[in-house]
Amino acid sequence: MADTAITAAILVIGDEILSGRTKDKNIGYIADYLTNLGIDLREVRVVPDEEAEIVAAVNALRSRYTYLFTTGGIGPTHDDITADSVAKALEVGIDHDPRAVAMMQERYAPGELNEARMRMARIPFGADLIENPISKAPGFIVQNVIVMAGVPSIMQAMLDAAAPRLKGGARMIVETIDAHGLAEGNYASELTIIDKEHPLVSIGSYPSFTGKGFRNQIVVRGKDADAVALAAENVRSLVARLTGDGAPA
Amino acid sequence: MADTAITAAILVIGDEILSGRTKDKNIGYIADYLTNLGIDLREVRVVPDEEAEIVAAVNALRSRYTYLFTTGGIGPTHDDITADSVAKALEVGIDHDPRAVAMMQERYAPGELNEARMRMARIPFGADLIENPISKAPGFIVQNVIVMAGVPSIMQAMLDAAAPRLKGGARMIVETIDAHGLAEGNYASELTIIDKEHPLVSIGSYPSFTGKGFRNQIVVRGKDADAVALAAENVRSLVARLTGDGAPA
Repeated sequence: MADTAITAAILVIGDEILSGRTKDKNIGYIADYLTNLGIDLREVRVVPDEEAEIVAAVNALRSRYTYLFTTGGIGPTHDDITADSVAKALEVGIDHDPRAVAMMQERYAPGELNEARMRMARIPFGADLIENPISKAPGFIVQNVIVMAGVPSIMQAMLDAAAPRLKGGARMIVETIDAHGLAEGNYASELTIIDKEHPLVSIGSYPSFTGKGFRNQIVVRGKDADAVALAAENVRSLVARLTGDGAPA
Repeated sequence: MADTAITAAILVIGDEILSGRTKDKNIGYIADYLTNLGIDLREVRVVPDEEAEIVAAVNALRSRYTYLFTTGGIGPTHDDITADSVAKALEVGIDHDPRAVAMMQERYAPGELNEARMRMARIPFGADLIENPISKAPGFIVQNVIVMAGVPSIMQAMLDAAAPRLKGGARMIVETIDAHGLAEGNYASELTIIDKEHPLVSIGSYPSFTGKGFRNQIVVRGKDADAVALAAENVRSLVARLTGDGAPA
């Protein structure tokens, strides 16, 4: 399974996330999106608006995963240094890209396209542009790095634009089994055995607090439909037996 | 400033965050909390429930920052491997901790405290426990690593319990200036100059989409009150001049 997996990482760039000023809404969205594409999100990092930090994270992540998605830092202000940092990480040049300038000219009158806004047309050499239907300044794909805006509505539009250019993987098949009031501690030992018996699937147990108490769900995930179905059946039998036995919640 | 800063990283541990199944609510909460303590959150990573990944991330982050906060992976099921992985990263032993067992016994009757639940009493040697008023199974602080639950309500209670044991830093002073309808591109060049003139502060520009259009806010942050006040005054003058000039929004 591992040798053919399409993998990904996300790099969120921005002081405002680390200070708590802005609450990230992109990680969860991209995670769902990639799962639907059959791409395994394997790691996420958040780093500040500092070139050395961005360069180091870009290089660590792009070398390890099929794709690296970045969000944030592609606006017109001095703290928007993602494009230049990615170019530096990849050791490619960067300059105003005529295609990006043309996109910007759709939005800005000649007098409005000042030096700061022209920063948004700085694109690493060799990149493909990602259209931005909302505010025009494009994202880009360079090698295996997909560079997107941080504003969620723009990021989402860019992800839609980029997705057709990505290799999809085998879709993950997921079965969720409600533990029907069982506490994790009541099924954990036997769940461990089921997990070991089914090496093609991963099994997780997820407590959540609903306000009325804890709710546990057991999730079976894998790319082999038969393996997932069999493991899920074993989990369902376990839950039925334990609830039937009147085990304490 | 940098030499005396108290810094931190967060390590979120869990397949469910990477698959998108669970949306993280802890990063933003901890970010706010640390900012209020005067601790600079410098990096966040999210990794799967895999020992090698957790060990590598723990070692990368604990060596680099004053504190490392982890969330997730301390429950009773087979995928809860945080405590053992942290012990491995720190090269310390781990076993059932009598203090943790005593805490668990407050919640569970002797017959209920089975092998799976006893996993939650496995604590690395040399750790201080972090009380869990909600479900009893404790978190812990070992060296500079603070290990907490992933369920937000429990994590929040653990953070409250751990906070008095942390070194606080100089509080960050923050001034937020609304750009009053100005587009970033209209003030970006001059903001760059202000940023360069005030090396003791960091200045960020944050667009957000309100539904009625983009709203930009300029944030001045620093630990020197006079420096922040002066830079903020310069930013306010810039905004006033540009809006007074009737610059396009």
